[in-house]
Amino acid sequence: MAKELKELTSREENYSQWYNDLVVKAGLAENSAVRGCMVIKPYGYAIWEKMQRALDDMFKATGHVNAYFPLLIPKSFFSREASHVEGFAKECAVVTHYRLKTSPDGKGVVVDPEAKLEEELIVRPTSETIIWATYKNWIQSYRDLPVLCNQWANVVRWEMRTRLFLRTAEFLWQEGHTAHATKEEAIEETYRMVGVYRDFAEQWMSVPVIVGRKTDNERFAGAEDTLCIEALMQDGKALQSGTSHFLGQNFSKAFDVQFADREGRLDYVWATSWGVSTRLMGALIMAHSDNNGLVLPPKLAPIQVVMVPIYKGEEELKQIVEKFEGIAAELKKRGISVKIDDRDNVRSGFKFAEYELKGVPLRLAMGPRDMQNGTIEVARRDTLAKETVSQEGLAGLLENLLVEIQENIFAKAVKFRREMTTPVDTYDEFKRVLDEKGGFVLAHWDGTGETELQIKNETKATIRCIPFDAPEEEGKCILTGKPSKRRVIFARSY
Amino acid sequence: MAKELKELTSREENYSQWYNDLVVKAGLAENSAVRGCMVIKPYGYAIWEKMQRALDDMFKATGHVNAYFPLLIPKSFFSREASHVEGFAKECAVVTHYRLKTSPDGKGVVVDPEAKLEEELIVRPTSETIIWATYKNWIQSYRDLPVLCNQWANVVRWEMRTRLFLRTAEFLWQEGHTAHATKEEAIEETYRMVGVYRDFAEQWMSVPVIVGRKTDNERFAGAEDTLCIEALMQDGKALQSGTSHFLGQNFSKAFDVQFADREGRLDYVWATSWGVSTRLMGALIMAHSDNNGLVLPPKLAPIQVVMVPIYKGEEELKQIVEKFEGIAAELKKRGISVKIDDRDNVRSGFKFAEYELKGVPLRLAMGPRDMQNGTIEVARRDTLAKETVSQEGLAGLLENLLVEIQENIFAKAVKFRREMTTPVDTYDEFKRVLDEKGGFVLAHWDGTGETELQIKNETKATIRCIPFDAPEEEGKCILTGKPSKRRVIFARSY
Repeated sequence: MAKELKELTSREENYSQWYNDLVVKAGLAENSAVRGCMVIKPYGYAIWEKMQRALDDMFKATGHVNAYFPLLIPKSFFSREASHVEGFAKECAVVTHYRLKTSPDGKGVVVDPEAKLEEELIVRPTSETIIWATYKNWIQSYRDLPVLCNQWANVVRWEMRTRLFLRTAEFLWQEGHTAHATKEEAIEETYRMVGVYRDFAEQWMSVPVIVGRKTDNERFAGAEDTLCIEALMQDGKALQSGTSHFLGQNFSKAFDVQFADREGRLDYVWATSWGVSTRLMGALIMAHSDNNGLVLPPKLAPIQVVMVPIYKGEEELKQIVEKFEGIAAELKKRGISVKIDDRDNVRSGFKFAEYELKGVPLRLAMGPRDMQNGTIEVARRDTLAKETVSQEGLAGLLENLLVEIQENIFAKAVKFRREMTTPVDTYDEFKRVLDEKGGFVLAHWDGTGETELQIKNETKATIRCIPFDAPEEEGKCILTGKPSKRRVIFARSY
Repeated sequence: MAKELKELTSREENYSQWYNDLVVKAGLAENSAVRGCMVIKPYGYAIWEKMQRALDDMFKATGHVNAYFPLLIPKSFFSREASHVEGFAKECAVVTHYRLKTSPDGKGVVVDPEAKLEEELIVRPTSETIIWATYKNWIQSYRDLPVLCNQWANVVRWEMRTRLFLRTAEFLWQEGHTAHATKEEAIEETYRMVGVYRDFAEQWMSVPVIVGRKTDNERFAGAEDTLCIEALMQDGKALQSGTSHFLGQNFSKAFDVQFADREGRLDYVWATSWGVSTRLMGALIMAHSDNNGLVLPPKLAPIQVVMVPIYKGEEELKQIVEKFEGIAAELKKRGISVKIDDRDNVRSGFKFAEYELKGVPLRLAMGPRDMQNGTIEVARRDTLAKETVSQEGLAGLLENLLVEIQENIFAKAVKFRREMTTPVDTYDEFKRVLDEKGGFVLAHWDGTGETELQIKNETKATIRCIPFDAPEEEGKCILTGKPSKRRVIFARSY
């Protein structure tokens, strides 16, 4: 077996270590020399590019355009919206100087004290403030609305405890920022975009998500309402995977953005913002992968089909690779991405292990007997099943298999989530389920922030969301016994 | 005429103001509230996205992959390569703190003095140092080479005098960083990438460029050799549009990146880096546009064909728009991007002026007479010529016209450059041509940095490059009279 695989910790042994090993060994990302910042390696970035392309197409199909706003934000902008600054002040990277100079001792460089900025600049942790300062110049009349901008960017939040993809000081994301003439339209947009995120998670990532509303405690700093998608990881912990905020008139008031309506009356503009980040990479990895490595849904796999020749001697290798090239050409015509691995310095067993580690959905192997018989071996990454099939009609078979794998991975994740979702009616049961089983716990809650916080402090579980599809049901809060109208979703989370 | 157009300063009146007006009024970019940083507006960003896509495809076709490296670089990394730090130290944004706190007077926030970083972090002005610190972990053996990574990213260089797209404190770019086992392979890569930039400039932007080598004075800080493409703007000034650097072993030595060759001998890795930025937007705008606004090459135009109905009353509008929709469907099948402007609150003259301002290559107009006659008016943005043609075979005609426009814009720029390239043999002539005509001046130079600097100080002209295709020609340096073997290109530049 490959050296890399031998070193992959198993999920059962240490889930957290398994995750980190997998991210590093599959070539997705690694820690950098800069505290809390990661390097996204080519294979990981190729997956992120596929995510970006799909999301960007979905944003454009819903009428959005891309733009770009400054990385650096004047400190004073931050203070304009009170709860916003409170939410982000503690994790801001601050630029205070704009020049270095040679150190007095001649060794290296030091910050030039004479190049101090009059006002400090914050490396954006999110861009509401700089964008609404800009929108003030763009919006005068109802004819200027809606503004439907998205930005692909890097942001910095100074996290103390970081984990590759899941929580890093710098991460990549997209942030949509829209401006509307009416409250209704802005709310509609907020729902539309959380719907786009759900579709992306389920149809591209094969990750089922619960769509719902955050409680007041968990709301975005500066929002009136935060909608979210919540996914369940294989260790039973939840991962918030995307959020869509209705910002009301908070930012338009903070930055004085008013518009004249058809009748010439002035009113403040209504706003939304919404984002997903490289954190989705963490969700993708943790939702599907196993002890052999990554399991990638075909739609996001940089390589969908890999071909490995089984041969002795150069002549055999040449013949098999030629055959592979014919198959590859047919697959490419169908839009399937293919790699032929003709390396002659590693054994085929090593290659098999490597592509399992990298999560390539389909692996083809062909030896001299296959050449004679007109057959080929097809191995699925999701089920690890192998089958020898005829070379005839192969391209169509593989195309169908890729669809099947995409759906099977999703179905598996749905089944897992169903098994790991537990309704409970008492606090004891609640705590027992959290400790012994994990997963989503459906429980009644009295609707107060105090209760939520007490439960969080005692159990480390938070309300992930109030699901949109939760049926009305009379019940009693598991902590206080006070009346409740529907169950909410609790879980421990990343 | 449209309000925007009335306010567009003419090139003759004030070229610099014309450029700025055009960038702002065509909706490409604007200054932000942050000194020296711009907002790239949706229309400008849509052009940049097209540039990115084309370049990214060319990078991948030449074997490169994308990755992502940290925004923040430890200060000590900078000092490792002596000339590199010297080149960038004076324009670095420096992060010194990682937290804000409520101001003692309760109003706003201040930097928390207790959250001072042990080592300051530099917002990357370019990424050689952090990338070579990373490559140290990636490269042990010749089997790990070559590494062919590219990164799409934002960078910050604290420029004192900024201009939209041409020189901004923050800009977007791509930076390729490659690692090779041999000097020859690295040099080959350096040439390959400057060739990719030339192809992109000429085939996509319709901007002819001179490919050549920078002098020692103008070389990238840390490079052994800098190749470049130089374009000529309509005001006779040059614009450096892309650079490709052979870095020798400077960075591998600074970061101790060695590899074992086939025989097990250790050697330092050979490096290149190469980049183009949103500065290309400036080149695109200044190379082709006129007093009516932008002129965009069809391959980079977000809207290639716009359709404007000429109508009286709702019924006529409806009929014409229906007809347009049929034409649009046919054009989309051919991969042509189309917009139908059915706004009923602005006159068609306003629309015409707006699309001229925005540089849309082809404008179609149709009125009731056209409906009767089966005709349509086609207006070209590049020549401003209008023609009424039959609706039959229209899609094919337009497709051909787009190709013709792409070529015509290029041919026009080539002609302009030819007329604006002047060989001179004396320093007097040199100065007169610079002052009275501008453009590229071909002159003999003795090859010394002193002469180059004296000419620069006296005339503001620099050596843009030593062109690859300059024929050998005996001559005398225009300043010192010393012997020279070929002419180099001088110009005043952006």
